[in-house]
Amino acid sequence: MKTLNEIALKVKSLNKKVRIAIAVAEDANTIGAISRSTNEGFVHPIMIGSKARIMELLKDFSLNDESFDVIDVSNHEEATREAVRMVKNNEADVLMKGLVGTDKFLREVLSKERGLLPPKAIMSYTCALELPKYHKLLLISDTAVLPAPDLNQKIAMINYSVKMAHNLGIAKPKVALISSTEKVSEAMPNTIDYALISKMAERGQIKDCLIDGPLDIFLACDPKAGDIKGVQSPIAGNADILILPNLETANAFYKGLMLFAGGELAGLIQGTVKPVVVMSRSESENSKYYCIALSCLMAEVR
Amino acid sequence: MKTLNEIALKVKSLNKKVRIAIAVAEDANTIGAISRSTNEGFVHPIMIGSKARIMELLKDFSLNDESFDVIDVSNHEEATREAVRMVKNNEADVLMKGLVGTDKFLREVLSKERGLLPPKAIMSYTCALELPKYHKLLLISDTAVLPAPDLNQKIAMINYSVKMAHNLGIAKPKVALISSTEKVSEAMPNTIDYALISKMAERGQIKDCLIDGPLDIFLACDPKAGDIKGVQSPIAGNADILILPNLETANAFYKGLMLFAGGELAGLIQGTVKPVVVMSRSESENSKYYCIALSCLMAEVR
Repeated sequence: MKTLNEIALKVKSLNKKVRIAIAVAEDANTIGAISRSTNEGFVHPIMIGSKARIMELLKDFSLNDESFDVIDVSNHEEATREAVRMVKNNEADVLMKGLVGTDKFLREVLSKERGLLPPKAIMSYTCALELPKYHKLLLISDTAVLPAPDLNQKIAMINYSVKMAHNLGIAKPKVALISSTEKVSEAMPNTIDYALISKMAERGQIKDCLIDGPLDIFLACDPKAGDIKGVQSPIAGNADILILPNLETANAFYKGLMLFAGGELAGLIQGTVKPVVVMSRSESENSKYYCIALSCLMAEVR
Repeated sequence: MKTLNEIALKVKSLNKKVRIAIAVAEDANTIGAISRSTNEGFVHPIMIGSKARIMELLKDFSLNDESFDVIDVSNHEEATREAVRMVKNNEADVLMKGLVGTDKFLREVLSKERGLLPPKAIMSYTCALELPKYHKLLLISDTAVLPAPDLNQKIAMINYSVKMAHNLGIAKPKVALISSTEKVSEAMPNTIDYALISKMAERGQIKDCLIDGPLDIFLACDPKAGDIKGVQSPIAGNADILILPNLETANAFYKGLMLFAGGELAGLIQGTVKPVVVMSRSESENSKYYCIALSCLMAEVR
């Protein structure tokens, strides 16, 4: 796949109808993206929030009365709690943040009693990045959650991203562990984790993918770089997944590409029992639509 | 300035003739870039290395016999040592690496007795990045030397980059201290350094520039981002200089932009008594030409 829109096409072809519980479904961009997905047939939304406000926003979209549900809960915290409860109880397949603040939303998602993260599970974030100048979608992690992932958190990031790649139809994704250099050195502690992970993968401790690192961005994404640098790698400039060494790197990398390389992004929280969509309120309807499609691709629908 | 070529135009307009000592001037790209700069009138090269090989490579370029010097030293280490000595003794204004390995080259540059780094000076690296989609050159640091700069190293990176901006003609450059967020938090230690640096700049401890941070790439480089995020900053999406939190971030950032956003780069070692050009052997003649022009802009010629 080369574009995020192909994710939506794939979801449509699966004939899934994914039930999405939206916590505080009271902003226009969210309603717009959800209505589009509903009309295209792959989503059945359960919009939780002030019914009056939701119905007002829905006026602009010709949704069939049977194609959605609204649950009237005007308090943001209660609406979020109800959305999380529905997902936990298999009354919905995906959780999505609406107009509620991210802190409030994540507090419910992470609640030990009521939340969606299993005990000891590592929460992380994986994005699918569309770049006009790369020949396929690039999955990147972690752009949002883990400031400085340790060895186990890096392995979790890999496993989550590999699962996403599998759902995108890539049987054996190529995982590049990104540093500024391809050399292992104590001066760059992440390269030590990368050497360990490479060996673990070789021993079958991480499965269903091809891993190599440390590699720089050129070795990971430019087929010419290996010859120029004299570095042999099974990734060979054809990476499906980039594991970035820390949040600062991942964040500057994708934001630079969105601003200067026409990049488009769709991402999901990882580690929860069901897909969770968290986007900032300012995100466009289109971005939200791609995120919804990705969450539907990752959802297991009975 | 919007393009690296404008740096060369500016240098030409200054009527400087910069003496560049080239350690092991025995590769075609280096000779090509140096010949072009010499013919354009702003460089007088002193090529140190095997005279036979240098004269062979020079055959392709119609250099006037008076416009260059060759010093015959076939051993790489001795050639490098002689180049460094000439720069240290004011017999040359700029040092440039040719075919010698980077490790060997830097060992001489950093030598306590013979080298070019003053005692206690911090060595760093600043690049000028040309991006088709940004409205001016973007100076970024540190893409090559400091793995995880501490507070004092960050301040040195700022001062070096500000000096380069001044030479580019920017009287009061806007310096953005880059993180994944604009919030100061103990979970992101670099943001603490950034808060300190912002306050130090306010108190006049860092001069001749406008500093703000932490900021993310959007707030630093996209004028629309401040309103969307509700963040007031004097940088306002119009940064001249990006200080990146660590080498991994800087490296992934610029390599992503070179690969996917048509970026072009020219950089210099910082902290030495005279400009030092270190480029990998694989770099194109064009990249080397831009680096030479930048080094000439930074050189103080008597």
